[in-house]
Amino acid sequence: MNKNFIINIGRQLGSGGREIGEKLAARLGIGFYDKELIKLASEESGLCCEFFERADERASQSIIGGLFSMRFPFVSDGAVPATNCLSNDALFKVQSDVIRKLAHQHSCLFVGRCADYILRDHPRCVNVFISCSREERIRRLCRIHAISEQAAEEMMDKADRKRAEYYNYYSYKKWGAAETYHLCIDSSVLGIDATVDFVEEFVRRRLGL
Amino acid sequence: MNKNFIINIGRQLGSGGREIGEKLAARLGIGFYDKELIKLASEESGLCCEFFERADERASQSIIGGLFSMRFPFVSDGAVPATNCLSNDALFKVQSDVIRKLAHQHSCLFVGRCADYILRDHPRCVNVFISCSREERIRRLCRIHAISEQAAEEMMDKADRKRAEYYNYYSYKKWGAAETYHLCIDSSVLGIDATVDFVEEFVRRRLGL
Repeated sequence: MNKNFIINIGRQLGSGGREIGEKLAARLGIGFYDKELIKLASEESGLCCEFFERADERASQSIIGGLFSMRFPFVSDGAVPATNCLSNDALFKVQSDVIRKLAHQHSCLFVGRCADYILRDHPRCVNVFISCSREERIRRLCRIHAISEQAAEEMMDKADRKRAEYYNYYSYKKWGAAETYHLCIDSSVLGIDATVDFVEEFVRRRLGL
Repeated sequence: MNKNFIINIGRQLGSGGREIGEKLAARLGIGFYDKELIKLASEESGLCCEFFERADERASQSIIGGLFSMRFPFVSDGAVPATNCLSNDALFKVQSDVIRKLAHQHSCLFVGRCADYILRDHPRCVNVFISCSREERIRRLCRIHAISEQAAEEMMDKADRKRAEYYNYYSYKKWGAAETYHLCIDSSVLGIDATVDFVEEFVRRRLGL
């Protein structure tokens, strides 16, 4: 086994988890994969990118109707050929293969997408969860999306419910439970940059970097 | 408000959480309260210590039959006068008052007992949860109690279920959920002493010590 290492970040919507992951990956000089992963999975499988975006982090219950192959490319106006179905399980499989391939090639930081579960046998993984006070999450979502507090709360609860469903469906652990991760931290306590510092320190101690 | 600060530690059985708390309190030179709290609550209320031990961290469902007052002292052979009942809710109330009183008097570290919920309005609280890999917890319990792996697993699951029931009954948050705490850490990643270092650093940054 090579000396590659992996950081997996789970996060509540509005916690700043993606930003923390991006900054941490830049500091450590490793690959960062979030939405990027979708593109890669798309290229890997020959399936259309938009298809992965629609299925992104949704558990298998929501089957996507439609046939997507090289012979029947995705129809971007929403008209979907009804001749076949490709389940989210199949998409999960494609994405898992991409995650494993990337982890084998070099050190990476993955945000979401059950990467901690997919890479559970990797000997040099650090699994982190970023939470945040409700007030701070609402403030951040209102600012980013220019929406009302109520809309932010709804968006937040819906997104986290979906993330939990997706994670709990595909892994044997529980999304957002302390025991699922090596470290969980509330980003509102120290702020984004000091949280990056702190997680970096944990990663360095854990991996002896 | 004075400059007192509070550290609350939740922990899985066998995680080393109590040891981490004890060492951290010693380093910071603050009061440490775990079983000690029971004695204090007992003295405070004039109720027998054994009574609190039996009710310790059990939710209200398990009502304790028996009358305990200064006039009908606890009967240590287990024979309990059936004339009255004192619920765990009443005991929780007594313990809560003791926790609040201690927190008002000086800086403290509390292990378990919903202290984070009881002190939710304290402006200088740090709430920490200590988890640990299942294998390490079993190893520790086998060593401490000289029991089989199977017995350790049963002890562990039963204790955590009770702690969760107690916490979830008396607080509005969820025991062991990342979002309930400021920091959650798996003590098997860095080991006990390095985990103490790490939590201490977090506490110092959070409180500006």
